Amino acid sequence: MSKPIIVYGHDTGPNPWKVAIVLEELNIPYDYKIVDMADMKKPPFEAINPNGRVPAITDPNTGITLWESGAIIEYLIDTYDKESVLTFSHFPEKYHVKQWLFFQVSGQGPYFGQAVWFQKFHEPVVPSAQERYTDHLKRVLGVLDKYLDGKEYLVGNKCTIADLSFVTWDMMVPWILEGDTDASQLEKHYPNWAAWHQRLMQRPAVLKIAQDKQNAV
Amino acid sequence: MSKPIIVYGHDTGPNPWKVAIVLEELNIPYDYKIVDMADMKKPPFEAINPNGRVPAITDPNTGITLWESGAIIEYLIDTYDKESVLTFSHFPEKYHVKQWLFFQVSGQGPYFGQAVWFQKFHEPVVPSAQERYTDHLKRVLGVLDKYLDGKEYLVGNKCTIADLSFVTWDMMVPWILEGDTDASQLEKHYPNWAAWHQRLMQRPAVLKIAQDKQNAV
Repeated sequence: MSKPIIVYGHDTGPNPWKVAIVLEELNIPYDYKIVDMADMKKPPFEAINPNGRVPAITDPNTGITLWESGAIIEYLIDTYDKESVLTFSHFPEKYHVKQWLFFQVSGQGPYFGQAVWFQKFHEPVVPSAQERYTDHLKRVLGVLDKYLDGKEYLVGNKCTIADLSFVTWDMMVPWILEGDTDASQLEKHYPNWAAWHQRLMQRPAVLKIAQDKQNAV
Repeated sequence: MSKPIIVYGHDTGPNPWKVAIVLEELNIPYDYKIVDMADMKKPPFEAINPNGRVPAITDPNTGITLWESGAIIEYLIDTYDKESVLTFSHFPEKYHVKQWLFFQVSGQGPYFGQAVWFQKFHEPVVPSAQERYTDHLKRVLGVLDKYLDGKEYLVGNKCTIADLSFVTWDMMVPWILEGDTDASQLEKHYPNWAAWHQRLMQRPAVLKIAQDKQNAV
């Protein structure tokens, strides 16, 4: 492979940076293009993603255009991770990696996103909706915490895309819960989750992307 | 294969029935077990799915236990659809199927679910939250409608898991939008979406599951 993959992303949203972490981990050249929110739901970007969202990629090495972070990550793994560094190629672990990846995209991302919306942006303030989504966020942390008891990683004692997919939303938890009594006690309430999150945060690829994300704002 | 796959589901929720449609399409024997909501987030079901949700499956033919509808569907296809009846095994269509499947699980299901919650259950009634989610639902119908212009199916002119994954939530749209001026004008506003949805609804597997779902309540 020689030509960089183009990643369409933006600055604050966590989903495109999730793709960037996988690219960094696999040492794949890429070019991160920030798309303005205002330009996402109209041409020419709509021709890349009819859903008007980021991330999307175009890979000049294979000719594919693809959107949805979960699909992009699985494409990158199939195409460029021939040694299964970030996944498992055997049964049943390959499906357990998939299971946690699907949980992240359907059970973590959308709900953490609604928590952000009602905590930070929705007018008027709706306490019952705020509570619904911060409760959901804490439930997800609780599920991860309980499952990670005695484990370093979600599947097969190795860091995979299952783990890495959670990290960009999890980075935002202290900010989302700002003002909530639990915000400063994450390590106390979710010790296995907190240790796992720190383990992931110390990876060079994750550190680099956390820095790039901060610099992009 | 001889032994039926056990599907843990419930009566009204659309996600377990999505898995049942794929099982019917592929003519795979299965046993649909309804789990009470009250029993999902505690043992013994938590040992099957630590996230306390349905669907989950156990497949006695391979020994796997798996949850998350998207992961289950991909497992069933890999394991039992060797002729790629409901998918594509070649590039780039195989990734485009994945892309729409990920859109369904992350962009349709969770948001249609929030529309249900705020339209039907949340107290007090919060009109701004109702509007947020019914608008989102209509946006998703609009994305599908525009993309389906001139097409019978989402990927490669063949009915795949990409299409079938949307149908159980789409069945609920008239009920979710009840009372909304758009509820009775879906065919007018989203003609390509409506024709596609009817095309899927006429499949024997989908008809059977729509009936089973109705009988289960």
